[in-house]
Amino acid sequence: MREHTVSSFDQDLRQIDQLIREMSDLAAAMVSASIDALLEADEATAQQVIADDKLMDAKQREVDDRAITLIAKRQPMAQDLRAVIGAIRMAGDLERVGDLAKNVAKRVGAIGKITAPRALSTGIKEMADLVLGQIRNIVAAYADRKPQELQTLRIDDEKIDVKYTSIFRELLTYMMEDPRNITPCTHLLFCAKNLERIGDHMTNIAENAYYVLTGTQLPLQRPKLDEMSSSISE
Amino acid sequence: MREHTVSSFDQDLRQIDQLIREMSDLAAAMVSASIDALLEADEATAQQVIADDKLMDAKQREVDDRAITLIAKRQPMAQDLRAVIGAIRMAGDLERVGDLAKNVAKRVGAIGKITAPRALSTGIKEMADLVLGQIRNIVAAYADRKPQELQTLRIDDEKIDVKYTSIFRELLTYMMEDPRNITPCTHLLFCAKNLERIGDHMTNIAENAYYVLTGTQLPLQRPKLDEMSSSISE
Repeated sequence: MREHTVSSFDQDLRQIDQLIREMSDLAAAMVSASIDALLEADEATAQQVIADDKLMDAKQREVDDRAITLIAKRQPMAQDLRAVIGAIRMAGDLERVGDLAKNVAKRVGAIGKITAPRALSTGIKEMADLVLGQIRNIVAAYADRKPQELQTLRIDDEKIDVKYTSIFRELLTYMMEDPRNITPCTHLLFCAKNLERIGDHMTNIAENAYYVLTGTQLPLQRPKLDEMSSSISE
Repeated sequence: MREHTVSSFDQDLRQIDQLIREMSDLAAAMVSASIDALLEADEATAQQVIADDKLMDAKQREVDDRAITLIAKRQPMAQDLRAVIGAIRMAGDLERVGDLAKNVAKRVGAIGKITAPRALSTGIKEMADLVLGQIRNIVAAYADRKPQELQTLRIDDEKIDVKYTSIFRELLTYMMEDPRNITPCTHLLFCAKNLERIGDHMTNIAENAYYVLTGTQLPLQRPKLDEMSSSISE
C-alpha cells in the first residue's frame, strides 16, 4: 500500500514538473520574441507576446491548483512537501518572467524604430541570449536532477549583470548626446532592467531547485553588481 | 480530540499571521525611511533600510518554515491549506516590498541632493504616502477579516499609477531641459517605478487575502494604466 501511495505521489509531482517545463519553454519563447519585436519594431510579434502572457498565467494557476490538491490528497511529509512548495515557487518566478517579457513587448510601440548605434542593439541581443541560456539551462538542470550544474549556473547571472551595467551606461550617453533620444532610451533602459530582473528570477529558481534536489541551501550569494555600484559621474 | 487539533491549527496560523503583521510594519517603515533618505540625501538612513532588509528576509524564512511545519504537522484540508499557502504568498510579496525599498535606498548615493524643482519632491512624497496607505490598510483589512475593504483598497492602486505616470513625464521633461539632470533623474525614475511596483505587490496581497478570507477570487482587474499608455511624444 505504501509503495502505491509513494508512486502516485511521484506521478502527480511529475505532472507538475511537466507543467513547469512547459512554463519555462513558454517563458523562453516570450523573452526571445519580445526582444525580436523590440529590435525590429515589430508590433504584431509584440502583441503575440502580450497574448501569450494569459497562457502563462493559466499554466501557473494550474500548477498551484495541482500542487494544493496534491498536498491535500497525499499529505506528503518533509522532503516531498518541500518539492511541492518548491514547484509552486518556481511557477511563481516563471510567471514573473512572462510578465517582464510582456512589459518589454508593451514598450515596442513607445520606442519605435531604434535609431541608436548598432552597438546598442547588439548589446541588448547579447544580454537577451545570456538570459535565454539561463532559462533553458536552469530548468534543464532541475529536470535532469543535476544540483551541481545549478550552482555553476547561478554564478553565470553575473555575466547578465555586467552586460546590463554596460548597456545602462551606453543609454545614458545617448541621452546626453541628444535630448530626442531621452524618451526611447528611457523605455530601452526599462527593457534592459527587465532582462536583468529575469536573470534574478532565474537565480531564484536555481536556488529553489537546488534546495528541492539536495535539501540544503546554496551558500550565500556574492554581493550583487548593479548600476549603482558603477561609477557614473553625474 | 478533533476540537483540540482544530484549535492548535488556528493557534499556529495566528502566529504566522502575527509574523505577517510584523513584516508589513517593517515594510512600511522601510518604504517611509527610504523615501525620507532619498528626499533628504540622508546616507545614514539609507544604510539602515539596507540593513533592515536582512531582518525582512529572516522573517520571511520564518513564515515559510512555520507554514511548512504547520502543513506537515496538522495536515490541513482545503480551506485551511489555502490559508497557509496564502500566508506563504503574502510573505513573499512583503519580502519583495522590502527589496524594492532597499533598492530605493541604494540609489540615494547615486542621486545626491535633489536639485529638481520642489514639485518633483512633493510628487514623490505624495506617491510614497499613497503606497504607505496601501501597505497599512490592506494588511489591516486582512487581519480584521474585512474582505469588502480589500476590494475597495485594490481599486486605490489606480491612484498610485496615475501619480507614477505624472512623475514619469515630469522626469523626462527635466532630462530634456538639461543633460546634467539625466543621471540623477534616471535613478529617480527607477525609484518611482519601485514605488509603483510596491503598489502592485500590495494589490497581489489584497487579492490573495480576499481569496483566503472568502474562498472566491476578486473579479478581473481593470487594464493597468502605465507610462506606455500615456501619450508622450518622442
